[in-house]
Amino acid sequence: MTVVFDDEDKKYMRQAIDLAWHGRFSTSPNPRVGCVVVRGGQVVGQGFHVRAGAPHAEVYALRQAGEAARGATAYVSLEPCAHYGRTPPCAQALIDAGVARVVAAMEDPNPLVAGKGLAMLRAAGIDAVSGCLEQEARALNRGFLSRIERGRPFVRLKIAASLDGKTALADGRSQWITGAAARADVQVLRAESCAVLTGIGTVLADNPRLNVRDFPVLRQPLRVVSDSRLRLPAHSRLLQDGVPTLIAAVGGDARRFADYPHVAVVFVPEKSGRTDLAALLAELAGRGIGELMVEAGATLNSAFLQADLADEIVLYQSPKLLGAAARGAFALPQNPAALTGDAAWHTVSVSPLGADIKWVLRRNSC
Amino acid sequence: MTVVFDDEDKKYMRQAIDLAWHGRFSTSPNPRVGCVVVRGGQVVGQGFHVRAGAPHAEVYALRQAGEAARGATAYVSLEPCAHYGRTPPCAQALIDAGVARVVAAMEDPNPLVAGKGLAMLRAAGIDAVSGCLEQEARALNRGFLSRIERGRPFVRLKIAASLDGKTALADGRSQWITGAAARADVQVLRAESCAVLTGIGTVLADNPRLNVRDFPVLRQPLRVVSDSRLRLPAHSRLLQDGVPTLIAAVGGDARRFADYPHVAVVFVPEKSGRTDLAALLAELAGRGIGELMVEAGATLNSAFLQADLADEIVLYQSPKLLGAAARGAFALPQNPAALTGDAAWHTVSVSPLGADIKWVLRRNSC
Repeated sequence: MTVVFDDEDKKYMRQAIDLAWHGRFSTSPNPRVGCVVVRGGQVVGQGFHVRAGAPHAEVYALRQAGEAARGATAYVSLEPCAHYGRTPPCAQALIDAGVARVVAAMEDPNPLVAGKGLAMLRAAGIDAVSGCLEQEARALNRGFLSRIERGRPFVRLKIAASLDGKTALADGRSQWITGAAARADVQVLRAESCAVLTGIGTVLADNPRLNVRDFPVLRQPLRVVSDSRLRLPAHSRLLQDGVPTLIAAVGGDARRFADYPHVAVVFVPEKSGRTDLAALLAELAGRGIGELMVEAGATLNSAFLQADLADEIVLYQSPKLLGAAARGAFALPQNPAALTGDAAWHTVSVSPLGADIKWVLRRNSC
Repeated sequence: MTVVFDDEDKKYMRQAIDLAWHGRFSTSPNPRVGCVVVRGGQVVGQGFHVRAGAPHAEVYALRQAGEAARGATAYVSLEPCAHYGRTPPCAQALIDAGVARVVAAMEDPNPLVAGKGLAMLRAAGIDAVSGCLEQEARALNRGFLSRIERGRPFVRLKIAASLDGKTALADGRSQWITGAAARADVQVLRAESCAVLTGIGTVLADNPRLNVRDFPVLRQPLRVVSDSRLRLPAHSRLLQDGVPTLIAAVGGDARRFADYPHVAVVFVPEKSGRTDLAALLAELAGRGIGELMVEAGATLNSAFLQADLADEIVLYQSPKLLGAAARGAFALPQNPAALTGDAAWHTVSVSPLGADIKWVLRRNSC
């Protein structure tokens, strides 16, 4: 069924999507959802989902609308749920509130919903339609959708490189290639991520914290360390600060991490002597990770690229020149086909950021 | 003397500068100059310098103004000349036309002029001032000014690199890393240049033409080949097509190029076993080269950077990945100080260009 939406519908759906973005740092593992209730050309209620366990967007909007919801149209950036989770089904709440029409941006691919929410509304005599600004709504929940539809997170590689494509001196020193503005931007991307993944090499070299420090957040992203032989040292900051951390190993003795309540170890299969990244991603999706940011060195970044498991590259590039002996940002085999074929990546945006540039690229399939 | 210019002055000077840019492909070795004659709030004449030997901007503008020039204000993007060159002095033409006021964007640093034009006008009772939009006027003639003030051309390095900072496969193949839009942009930069410099390595590997082919031009940039041992092969396209070409050598027998009327050989000193680039640049400036574009490989590019003789980098970067074994865009010694210090370069602009990006950087001193 093709539904045509008018400018009014698009206007209110855009508001609902804008509202949903307010939850971008906090809804994980839930999707970001916004809702706007409109009656007689007036917004009578609005809300967005804040965090898992808290009410859904529709509940806030209907509460605000009160009796004004009767006969109104509810715009929701994602199909209302039809199942009892931590909260009762929103489709039921919309029915109880007496709305006349529900416009969803897209159906919820979650098998627990998947059209059942809209069907429930229609069964109650409500005019329930979907597909208004679907593309914008999909961008809003890129990670959630990847987890549900592909069984793996949306994978973003964050790389900080010099003008000559280097990420560290030969001895591993890399602080700082990029400036304060780029590093602050990384904090935002981290906060948006369900999890941040790094390799044991980066941990041993930089002893990073990989948390959000620039501004207060309701939740920290899960930190994931790919540490095939469980070499993570006891003095690592990751073990000290209480932020949830998952160590992905292929073997070794996990007992020495038993004393850290915020640390878990998961064993994943090997593939050609290395961590099987596809298996690791499936494991993370199973744990509710939708958006994964990889903040690692050339080896792990390149493993993702070679396995065709990276969806986005965010390259912060500084005008500095580190020299040919410094470490390259990528450790890929030579690819002569790149010269004759089209690029597998396309530019989403590029702009100056402080003294550096920020270049966002996506796989052509994304 | 500090002169304050009002919005009217700036408006007409901007027009003069915009006009001057029309000559950007053709005035070399002369500066780009535009002139607007205004009387009673109306433009009564305008002109720009087209090419060496043709009349100066003022002459066209005064011809168009005719009798209306009497009592008018002439806006000129560069101080009118005071000497007899291939054409009579423009200061005299302005006096003869009876203008009441002359506004110049900047004084001409050329020792043949250097204030003498303004002085000549003032001696004739004309209100002659300078400094209106001087910065924009300097940008217009960056190359000309560099040649006069620094005794060397403004040097722009053009680099086409992949996302992983490579400019060619290990075997030298590089066609094509960037797309059609980037290559078309290079043609524009070439046309704007007084000369294009490459190294013998690039000639041997790619046999380039280094000319402007995408659109008709009144003059081709001089091609310069840094070929210290005069290895340029007889089958080189550079020898075949009749476009002026200069071979810069440190030794060898130049007689075998005697049969090519468009080819000249110049001997420059060595420095540490290589062509002394500072000496080469001085030689080029002496030959009227103001804007020099270097289209070379990592070795020559890096020699310019190490000698601190590069003013601008234009980096076309594609979203392709060539692999770690491919050739890097730079061959510089490791520079740990880059991590702790500020970058020596700053971003002028960065934007998508076709499927690639174009990133323009300048030395902080430029």
